[in-house]
Amino acid sequence: MKTVNVGIIGFGTVGGGAAAILAESDPPLSDKIGIDIRLKRIAEKNKGLWRPVGGRLDIFAERAEDVTDDPEIDIVVEVIGGIEPARSLILRALDRGKAVVTANKALLAARGAELFRKAMEKGTSIGFEASVAGGVPVIGAMRDGLIANRIEAIVAILNGTSNYVLTRMVEGGIPFSEALAEAQAQGYAERNPANDIEGADTAHKLVLLACLAFHSLVDLKDVPTEGISKLAAEDIRYAGEMGYGVKLLAIARRRPNGLELRVHPALVPKGHPLYSVRDVFNGVLVFGDATGPVLFCGRGAGRMPTGSAVVADIVDAARGTARQAFSKMAFLHTGPGAAPPVIPLDDIRTRYFVRFTVQDKPGVLGAIARVLGEKDVSIASVIQKEPVAGGGVPIVMMTHSAIEKNFRTAMEEIGRFPFCVRPPAFLRVEE
Amino acid sequence: MKTVNVGIIGFGTVGGGAAAILAESDPPLSDKIGIDIRLKRIAEKNKGLWRPVGGRLDIFAERAEDVTDDPEIDIVVEVIGGIEPARSLILRALDRGKAVVTANKALLAARGAELFRKAMEKGTSIGFEASVAGGVPVIGAMRDGLIANRIEAIVAILNGTSNYVLTRMVEGGIPFSEALAEAQAQGYAERNPANDIEGADTAHKLVLLACLAFHSLVDLKDVPTEGISKLAAEDIRYAGEMGYGVKLLAIARRRPNGLELRVHPALVPKGHPLYSVRDVFNGVLVFGDATGPVLFCGRGAGRMPTGSAVVADIVDAARGTARQAFSKMAFLHTGPGAAPPVIPLDDIRTRYFVRFTVQDKPGVLGAIARVLGEKDVSIASVIQKEPVAGGGVPIVMMTHSAIEKNFRTAMEEIGRFPFCVRPPAFLRVEE
Repeated sequence: MKTVNVGIIGFGTVGGGAAAILAESDPPLSDKIGIDIRLKRIAEKNKGLWRPVGGRLDIFAERAEDVTDDPEIDIVVEVIGGIEPARSLILRALDRGKAVVTANKALLAARGAELFRKAMEKGTSIGFEASVAGGVPVIGAMRDGLIANRIEAIVAILNGTSNYVLTRMVEGGIPFSEALAEAQAQGYAERNPANDIEGADTAHKLVLLACLAFHSLVDLKDVPTEGISKLAAEDIRYAGEMGYGVKLLAIARRRPNGLELRVHPALVPKGHPLYSVRDVFNGVLVFGDATGPVLFCGRGAGRMPTGSAVVADIVDAARGTARQAFSKMAFLHTGPGAAPPVIPLDDIRTRYFVRFTVQDKPGVLGAIARVLGEKDVSIASVIQKEPVAGGGVPIVMMTHSAIEKNFRTAMEEIGRFPFCVRPPAFLRVEE
Repeated sequence: MKTVNVGIIGFGTVGGGAAAILAESDPPLSDKIGIDIRLKRIAEKNKGLWRPVGGRLDIFAERAEDVTDDPEIDIVVEVIGGIEPARSLILRALDRGKAVVTANKALLAARGAELFRKAMEKGTSIGFEASVAGGVPVIGAMRDGLIANRIEAIVAILNGTSNYVLTRMVEGGIPFSEALAEAQAQGYAERNPANDIEGADTAHKLVLLACLAFHSLVDLKDVPTEGISKLAAEDIRYAGEMGYGVKLLAIARRRPNGLELRVHPALVPKGHPLYSVRDVFNGVLVFGDATGPVLFCGRGAGRMPTGSAVVADIVDAARGTARQAFSKMAFLHTGPGAAPPVIPLDDIRTRYFVRFTVQDKPGVLGAIARVLGEKDVSIASVIQKEPVAGGGVPIVMMTHSAIEKNFRTAMEEIGRFPFCVRPPAFLRVEE
């Protein structure tokens, strides 16, 4: 039986999960794949984290170079996260011809081009299944299973923390701050949750999916990103009354004039495949021209789900299939001019949910409707709610599809009316 | 650029879809994968079906051997269906060292062992992504993306025709015969729908998934199979009132004492991931020990979705990755004794939904409850409904988890009571 040696850099949540699967699976992985994958070394600079793996403590080293530079190690797993030293360590491993497996979406979204080029140049590969949607094998599906398709769009829930917070806001009727505190108490949100809550993590993952979907390098800077921290509990309630849920969505869509890319909270109607993706689950809806919509759904984070994805990439590299598929991944072959242009957020078309909070007096609705009409924003439905504490009457509206720039200009104009008690609040709608 | 030649046997729905993708994709497939995949020949004995593909009519041949025996053809796609001559043609192609791609679940479920062994012996591969869940890449996920997992269970909706019929029965409140006629009018059901409606097609697909999940050869004869043709509209209505949908489920589950395998209609509660898989969609829920539940969902049939899966397998073979992964697929390495035993249906434990139709007189419920109690079947809830046309009062019951054999014995005993106007009707419940 062929033997392949693996080294892991970083013994945190994901590294621990991957190590447990490699060293302790019963029956062993080799029974299933016919290759003996040996975990040779784990580099973890914090000795306080060392714990026996497969009964061995001597598997640990303090220095990451003991993994990257070991000529016996064939596959290097980087699971320390962050840009540096992760980037340098991956480059170092690639330079030595090793296959790399990583869960580092922030690094790949920021510096993927450099790393992928290096891997290509050295005839090796970078596996990153674990970087998107945890244990859900959606990167593999984009690379292999859906390869016959022209991908028209991806609409996805990619951050479990935010989805948990939103689920609690919707189902528990509680405000954002309280839902976040619950998520932190459950261990689903970090002490500093900004990366999850403000959408950055979702945007990193969207960039990776979009690169695969559109076979071109997508730049993180081109993804307008909005998080969920400013969501009002009442908007979630009103949306619910109208048959919509609220999700933090990552959207990438091919349009005749370019690519639409965005991350923001959005209303999704009951019956939409992502509507029932709740709690810490992730859901990725891929629209292929041949397949139509395909939904992938599961746990997007956590020790064992993400460990499962890391080990899938290790097996891919050990089988030799990673290198073959990687060398043919066309998104690096396309020249700089080959990527379709990204459509500015101003130019997208979508439907909107809006809440105006206004003084209860005659003429208000007429004034709002007039401004919307002037900006070519047509109203689909409108409900006036009971007056709220703090003053003002909420008017909740759904629009038909409108151009973002027009819609926002209308919001600014309406917000300047003296009858507006608060600035208008709005959310985009994904049908 | 490397060139790979493909021949297709059968120009029906699936063959036509695959041919269209290979010959007419824009941009061409080669741009994405860096390999020039050329559709060299299509064998279709019915000349009346010949239509230009990529502008060429000279691509057609009448004899399948013009594909299997052509030394220039590297990959043979078998999409004629049925056992013979499909089996002989596949063996003939494998004997010549060609990679085979097929959508033929009936053949693989019946004769997979023979075909897989031949492919292994010849150092080639059989791709069968298109045989389960159409365009949804679930075979690939089982082989690659979820490889790090011990698969604990698969619960799946694998037949689009049945799912459409059930969706119409549930949402339209119409009886089976009417829903089936609608499905036939829509082109979703064949003139002779038995294979879809009676569960055989679902059982074939379950066998393939179970082989991959449990790394052992599962025998079609070990899958108790029940279709949807005997489902009463009223049971679907009562189930709906209790918050359950009805789906034709394929279930494969690892138990301490062996494998549980079965195909039958079942109640699934609102909130279950398969509850919202409606219409012609398929859904496959895989429970991995590391990932937890992962749901795959999409169109399970049709020209382009299934064509997409065929072409994914062609790309897999063209890249050389198919052979590598196939040679390591352990379910053929395990000896005859290595497969876990299959648990007889009598010995499974599950919850049941039951409808008794009885005379409205004192003591009836007591008599029913007594028999159930004697057989260790405990009642979770019971509702007496309004009397029905044709006589009798329906009593609808949900049980707690019980042993199938005990439950069925109780049903027989109760059915013999003179107060039973009709034999008890029951459905299993999947939580």
